[in-house]
Amino acid sequence: MQGVQVTVLAGGIGGARFLLGLRSLGHDITVIGNTGDDVTMWGLRICPDLDTVMYTLGGGISAERGWGREDETFRLKGELAAYRAAADDDSAPSWFGLGDLDIATHVLRTQWLREGVTLSEVTRRLCARWQPGVTLLPACDEPVETHVTLVDGRTVHFQEWWVRLHAGVAAKRIELTGASAAHPAPGVIEAIDSADVVVLPPSNPVVSIGTILSVPGIADALRRTTAPVVGLSPIIGDAPVRGMADACLAAIGVETSAYAVAMHYGRRPSGLLDGWLVDQTDKEAADRLTEEGLPARAVPLLMSDVDASAAMAQAALDLAEELRR
Amino acid sequence: MQGVQVTVLAGGIGGARFLLGLRSLGHDITVIGNTGDDVTMWGLRICPDLDTVMYTLGGGISAERGWGREDETFRLKGELAAYRAAADDDSAPSWFGLGDLDIATHVLRTQWLREGVTLSEVTRRLCARWQPGVTLLPACDEPVETHVTLVDGRTVHFQEWWVRLHAGVAAKRIELTGASAAHPAPGVIEAIDSADVVVLPPSNPVVSIGTILSVPGIADALRRTTAPVVGLSPIIGDAPVRGMADACLAAIGVETSAYAVAMHYGRRPSGLLDGWLVDQTDKEAADRLTEEGLPARAVPLLMSDVDASAAMAQAALDLAEELRR
Repeated sequence: MQGVQVTVLAGGIGGARFLLGLRSLGHDITVIGNTGDDVTMWGLRICPDLDTVMYTLGGGISAERGWGREDETFRLKGELAAYRAAADDDSAPSWFGLGDLDIATHVLRTQWLREGVTLSEVTRRLCARWQPGVTLLPACDEPVETHVTLVDGRTVHFQEWWVRLHAGVAAKRIELTGASAAHPAPGVIEAIDSADVVVLPPSNPVVSIGTILSVPGIADALRRTTAPVVGLSPIIGDAPVRGMADACLAAIGVETSAYAVAMHYGRRPSGLLDGWLVDQTDKEAADRLTEEGLPARAVPLLMSDVDASAAMAQAALDLAEELRR
Repeated sequence: MQGVQVTVLAGGIGGARFLLGLRSLGHDITVIGNTGDDVTMWGLRICPDLDTVMYTLGGGISAERGWGREDETFRLKGELAAYRAAADDDSAPSWFGLGDLDIATHVLRTQWLREGVTLSEVTRRLCARWQPGVTLLPACDEPVETHVTLVDGRTVHFQEWWVRLHAGVAAKRIELTGASAAHPAPGVIEAIDSADVVVLPPSNPVVSIGTILSVPGIADALRRTTAPVVGLSPIIGDAPVRGMADACLAAIGVETSAYAVAMHYGRRPSGLLDGWLVDQTDKEAADRLTEEGLPARAVPLLMSDVDASAAMAQAALDLAEELRR
C-alpha cells in the first residue's frame, strides 16, 4: 500500500511516537487529537496532547521528557510561583510544567480563542509553524475537559490526578465534561468516512482515545466507515507500555491486558475494531481474539525508536490490507 | 519634616527614580501611577509605568534599561515572532520588549482582570511580592489608553509612537481614550485630600502626569487640597532630562522649557502648582516664575543616583514646607 489515507485517533506521547513511525512510511495522515486533557492555567488555555503531537512531529519536543519543548527553561513559572507565594494565593498550580518556550504557544492560542477563532483554526495556525507533516484536527472545537472522581470523593481535573497525584489515588469515575454539547470539529467525520484505514494507536484507551470517542458522532463514524479500523494494544503483558493506563482501566472496570482492551473497544459493527495488534509476548491473547472473531496479530509493540514505531505502523496497515480483501 | 504624607503623581522611569530618592527620606508615600501607556499585546494586559515603579522600588528593575526586569531573557518573545512569521500574521508587535520574567506579571494581571478583579487590587497583589515601600495606586481602574494622532493622519497607540517610531513622526494630538468614563481609583482622591505635600516629579507632563490629570476628578482634587503642590521640571535648558518629552510638548503647543512647563501646569487655584523646581542652570526661569507669582527654586535636577534624587525630593519638601508657612 502506498499513499493511502490513514486517519489516526491520538492521545499524547504514545500517539505522537506512533505517528513519527507512521509518517515515515509516506502516507497521507489525518490525526484526530484528544482535547480532554486541555486545561486553563493562569488564564492560559493549554492543549497538552495536541501540542505533544505538534511538537513531536515538528521536531520541537523534549526528547528526554516526551512533552514540552527541547532546550526549555522554566523562568516564567518560577515568577508565577513567587507571586503566588507573596499573594498567599494557592489557587493556581505549581505542579504543572509550563516552560518559557511552551508558554508562547499557550499565549497565542489563548489570544486567538478569545478573539473567537476556533480551536481547529488555532491548531492550523500553530501547525503552520511546526509543519508536522500530518493534518492535525482537535476532536472538537468546544472546550471539553476530563474530570476524575476519586475514591475519596473529590472530583479533580484529569491533569491534577495525572500530573499532581500521579494517579496515586484510585479513580472511581472518569468523565468528559462538556462532551454532550460538543461536536466533531470540521473535517473529523470526513477524515473517518473517507479514510482507507483508521488506526487506534497504543494511546490510553480511556483518557485519550476514550475521550475522543465521547464526542458525539465520532464513535458512530468509526462504526460505519468503509475503512478497516485497526487498533494497537497499549498494554503488554499486564502493564501499560507507558503512562498509567492501568489506573484508568481500573476506573472503568477493564482488566489491564491486551485482550481486555480489545474486548472493551469491541468488534464492529457493534464495537469499533476490525483488527487488533498485540505484542509478540501476548500471542495467546491474539490467538484467543482471532478465535473469538476479532482478527489479531502478535508483533513487537515497543516503540523504542522511529524504526520500531514504523514497523508497528506497517503491521497495522498490513493487517488492514488483509482485512480489506 | 519627618514622617509626612507625600502623594506623588508618577510616570515610568523618571518617576520611579525620583521615588527611589524620596523613599530614602523615610516618609509615607502614596504613588498615583499613570495607566495611559497600558496596552494589550498578545492578549496580555501590560501596565508599563506601574510595573516600572513596582520593579524599580522592589529592586527588580533592569538597571541598564530602566524598564523591565534584571537578568531578563527574551525566549518567549522569540517564539511569538516565529509563530507570527509562520502564520503570516503581522498584527502583533515585535518591537515591544517583553521579557520572560516580565511576562509572568502580565499573565497574572490578565488572569486576575479577566476574573473581574480591579486593576487596583491586581496592583496590590503584585506589590505584595515586590514590597515597593510605597502605596502604589493606578490613576483609575477602568482601561484607558493614550492614543496619538500623527501629522501623517495615522492614529496609533502611544507605545507604537514611543517605542516603535521613537516619536520620529510628529504628533498633532495626544488623547487619553476612555478618560471620560474613568473614575479615580479607590484611594486616589483621598491620597490627594489628606496629603501633607503633593509632588509632581519630573515625569512627562503630557503622557505621564497629563494622562493622570485627564482622569475626571484628579485635577480638581489637586486644585482643592490643603497640601502644597510642588512640581519638578522635566526640562533642563531646552531639552528633556530623559525620554522624548519635547515631542509630546510640541504636540500640545508648549515650548520645551522649564518655564513653559510650569506655565502649562499653572498656578493654583486655577492651575495646579504652588511651587516649582527648575535645574540650577535655569535660574533665570526660576526668578521669572517667582516674580510672576509662582515661587520657584533652582536646584540640581539630574537624577544621577539615589542621593541626587533624594536631594531633589528634599528640595521639593523644603519648598512645600516654606509655602505652607
